[in-house]
Amino acid sequence: MSLRSLAVVLLHAPVLDRRGDTVLSAVTNLDLHDIARSAKTFGLGRFYVVTPLAEQQRLVLRLLDHWLEGHGAEYNPKRKQALELIRVCATVDDALDDWRREQGGEPLPILTGAAQQGNMSFRDLRSAIGQQPAMILLGTGWGIAPELYDRGWPVLCNIKGADEYNHLPVRAAAAIMFDRLLQNRE
Amino acid sequence: MSLRSLAVVLLHAPVLDRRGDTVLSAVTNLDLHDIARSAKTFGLGRFYVVTPLAEQQRLVLRLLDHWLEGHGAEYNPKRKQALELIRVCATVDDALDDWRREQGGEPLPILTGAAQQGNMSFRDLRSAIGQQPAMILLGTGWGIAPELYDRGWPVLCNIKGADEYNHLPVRAAAAIMFDRLLQNRE
Repeated sequence: MSLRSLAVVLLHAPVLDRRGDTVLSAVTNLDLHDIARSAKTFGLGRFYVVTPLAEQQRLVLRLLDHWLEGHGAEYNPKRKQALELIRVCATVDDALDDWRREQGGEPLPILTGAAQQGNMSFRDLRSAIGQQPAMILLGTGWGIAPELYDRGWPVLCNIKGADEYNHLPVRAAAAIMFDRLLQNRE
Repeated sequence: MSLRSLAVVLLHAPVLDRRGDTVLSAVTNLDLHDIARSAKTFGLGRFYVVTPLAEQQRLVLRLLDHWLEGHGAEYNPKRKQALELIRVCATVDDALDDWRREQGGEPLPILTGAAQQGNMSFRDLRSAIGQQPAMILLGTGWGIAPELYDRGWPVLCNIKGADEYNHLPVRAAAAIMFDRLLQNRE
């Protein structure tokens, strides 16, 4: 099993806020570091950071410049290898276009959400990844906005905990998903 | 399967720094939030934050006060439920003593490390958890110092990625371990 044809997308819009309104969320430095490190460890092909705000895009590019070209690249080359996976896009569709171009095939977008029962199991997704490029969408804030669920894309079964409490950080959910998909374990 | 008799310990000493020297690391706010949320989601019984520095201990207690008693408790009750799992200890042995008292039985300490082949599989640990209280030790910085490996405690098999790159954040490694241990999935 290889996850090279799988990309992960971290959405900062359209997402929900704590009141359930659709908003743009701010980029969190640590989301980029953590998800890039997990994606690199499990062998994903790309990590798209989606934000429509030009100022936020510049912020991500500045961070990347520090770690890929600046002082950070020498200080921590392992971090550089992880952050090299990142591309910044304005919208999900831009990310899909880019991944389609890179992979030379139509990517399957997969939605995720802590409250989503889902219609695609991890096993289903593993088979799908063997057959076509794919793209897992993760929401920041209080999750992906309904307008993306309206597009009819498959929804990954949520990660169930021990009981009804289910508030994993997006950084943790991403790591668990990659681990479940790669299944490189005894 | 229940992980109620399992505690997680986040060590800030003795740990290694990037040069391989044994040092004390500083407490990172986000480690506490992320590991507490993952521990709560997967139903662990306790989250020990170990640091021998009184000033760092006070910092953790201030953070807990904000989220358990102060403004944070009203603002985000779910975060409160997670952070309630935290206890601050000066040493691993203090954490072991506390967990022994709470569980009324001798806890099994389990070491972890990204570079450790390990002598205990996740399957072994699952069986052990069914039989006695247990405690997973996670290192910050560049990992747990050799003096703890010298104590002869079992070492959990490391989380293998796609190839030789293996630099998961401790926050991500914790989430993956809990998920693998609970195995609540289709």
